[in-house]
Amino acid sequence: MANASKNLDVVALTQALISRPSVTPADAGAMDTVQRTLEDLGFTCHRLKFGDIENLYARRGTASPNLCFAGHTDVVPVGTRNLWRYDPFGAEIHDGAVIGRGAVDMKGGIAAWIAAVSRYADQAGSLSLLITGDEEGVAKDGTVRVVQWLKERGEVIDHCIVGEPSSSAQLGDMIKVGRRGSVNATFTVSGKQGHVAYPQRALNPLPVLVDLLAALKDRVLDDGYADFQPSNLEITTIDTGNTATNIIPQDARARINIRFNPAHTGAELKAWFEALAAEHAARSGTKIEVQTAISGEAFLTEAGPFVDLIADVIKDTLGIETDRSTTGGTSDARFIRDLCPVVEFGLVGQTMHQINECASVADLEALTDAYSALIEAYFSKFGSGS
Amino acid sequence: MANASKNLDVVALTQALISRPSVTPADAGAMDTVQRTLEDLGFTCHRLKFGDIENLYARRGTASPNLCFAGHTDVVPVGTRNLWRYDPFGAEIHDGAVIGRGAVDMKGGIAAWIAAVSRYADQAGSLSLLITGDEEGVAKDGTVRVVQWLKERGEVIDHCIVGEPSSSAQLGDMIKVGRRGSVNATFTVSGKQGHVAYPQRALNPLPVLVDLLAALKDRVLDDGYADFQPSNLEITTIDTGNTATNIIPQDARARINIRFNPAHTGAELKAWFEALAAEHAARSGTKIEVQTAISGEAFLTEAGPFVDLIADVIKDTLGIETDRSTTGGTSDARFIRDLCPVVEFGLVGQTMHQINECASVADLEALTDAYSALIEAYFSKFGSGS
Ligand SMILES: [Zn+2]
Ligand SMILES: [Zn+2]
Repeated sequence: MANASKNLDVVALTQALISRPSVTPADAGAMDTVQRTLEDLGFTCHRLKFGDIENLYARRGTASPNLCFAGHTDVVPVGTRNLWRYDPFGAEIHDGAVIGRGAVDMKGGIAAWIAAVSRYADQAGSLSLLITGDEEGVAKDGTVRVVQWLKERGEVIDHCIVGEPSSSAQLGDMIKVGRRGSVNATFTVSGKQGHVAYPQRALNPLPVLVDLLAALKDRVLDDGYADFQPSNLEITTIDTGNTATNIIPQDARARINIRFNPAHTGAELKAWFEALAAEHAARSGTKIEVQTAISGEAFLTEAGPFVDLIADVIKDTLGIETDRSTTGGTSDARFIRDLCPVVEFGLVGQTMHQINECASVADLEALTDAYSALIEAYFSKFGSGS
Repeated sequence: MANASKNLDVVALTQALISRPSVTPADAGAMDTVQRTLEDLGFTCHRLKFGDIENLYARRGTASPNLCFAGHTDVVPVGTRNLWRYDPFGAEIHDGAVIGRGAVDMKGGIAAWIAAVSRYADQAGSLSLLITGDEEGVAKDGTVRVVQWLKERGEVIDHCIVGEPSSSAQLGDMIKVGRRGSVNATFTVSGKQGHVAYPQRALNPLPVLVDLLAALKDRVLDDGYADFQPSNLEITTIDTGNTATNIIPQDARARINIRFNPAHTGAELKAWFEALAAEHAARSGTKIEVQTAISGEAFLTEAGPFVDLIADVIKDTLGIETDRSTTGGTSDARFIRDLCPVVEFGLVGQTMHQINECASVADLEALTDAYSALIEAYFSKFGSGS
């Protein structure tokens, strides 16, 4: 690998990206900034627009292996703007931190990767980036469609780093080697409205819903699985909206969410919901409708040389033993794991989605160094010349 | 008892009352109409205004026994006015029925009683009327306060007829000799909001509410009592209002209603709610608040000469064996039963609170005849001359 004359500044690039107010699903020029910067570094860029969403697949080199970095330029809304100490799109530096929406989730991560890449003129294989503008939103026209496009082209990615803010309290203290799956289900029980004094003329959906929810919540799904926490079910809402004290309502509705480890699949849980609903409907004479939305399946990137390489680089550059975790919410890694081993490694997530989101300049620079060492170690270990 | 020259027309008086749009708590001149009519018949009238509510206690005679008729001039709202075939306050007669809000509940009943009274110039004791404008509303400044006023004056009422539309399918087929009690309770469970992916940092109130409601609904309160149906609990609403699929909510709320027979009291049920809530709060670490509102205690007017007299009069005048029932909702009889035996006997309730409420002219006239026969039989049996 030849060192390049370009040595981009991670802080300046982070600021340039934050200054584009790309509140999902808006792009506001953020993808153009990424694309122009990568073209200057010798990448071939494919702009992929699906629906209203800007996506980008960029590659430098044609040889194997292909190490991909995945990320998103869209950000969550700023929330109550008055509560921000500084302009959320001003990217000002105060007390040693770049402040703004997206600083850690994850414009700072993208900037660190690109700055790391800019230190090298080439590599013993290929470097690619998969950047989407639809991670924080509905995630329908983003990574999931780019992955489809890559498959159709026969494009091979060997390993992938997702730049989400995986660190917990200190940069590098945690990487994510898998994620639990997530499924939402809404149960609507329909009975027959009537007066509480004449229950025999009505059919109350609420006791049926209570029994159904008891059956759902009382099942122990598992006791954990490999490196995962036990699967967990939460009832997130129950609603009726009946204001009359003397009326038995017609309908009632509840929603649950399950975060599940690889002991389960979305399809199996959906089938369970439907069987349970059918059983309770038959027993009570009500009608029960179930709407299931599988947000993502559980997955685990098995321990192996790629995960070990990342852990070693973190130890060498950041001096910390990283925790190989599967906790937390979902990310686009759930789509990429269909292509290759995927690990999330990025900034400290404490301020993500919060008021006054910020990334410390020291962390941005340390992450750039770590990513740089990772690129060097990767091609040294897996590269075509090795 | 001397027959009077005045022989008021029940239909005209029903129409006069319907034409006052006394939608609860408004009076709209309805009470003045009652008062002027009674003064013409020799009654001494006490207008009792509590809060914004018009009430009336009228009495003719000073001797014992005192037979009281209780009723209300207020009516429920008309609902969707476009659905009425005729003006709900027009009191028009079509197809042999007087049409309008309050026709059966219960301006027609008041008119029938006053028309029956007008057939006699005096009686062997006293006749009284307790008329309120607050039965369909909150019922706080109506009969409950008039009863208090009567007690404070040492006014004695020996027996009471409530003119509610007690008949089911045919005039006289049912009288109400008691009512179940009614209690509403609202349970608010407070936990701690959080993200579904981190349930250990949150405390979900919904599974606690589900368990609490299961315990409430699964208790068999009783198997019935004397002439009563079993007590019955209905969950009337459960509400959370959480629109976010990934958030564990802070609070959740449910409301129940119990219709209970004399095997229970409101105070005993309230104590049960509170003990159960305390137990589930302690077990789960949540806070559970209970708000209990006792609308009325259960009561039964025991079988005896007064109930028998009414049943006999119905058989003689209407040719039907009446059903001595305790079914249905609450009425102001729940307040009057503190004073004396009370029985509800009035028109057919099928159209009460409905669009196109109406009372058939034939029923109004037959009820007047039955009330007239009842007054005559009452003073013949219990009267001071007998
Ligand atoms: Zn993110
Ligand atoms: Zn009524």
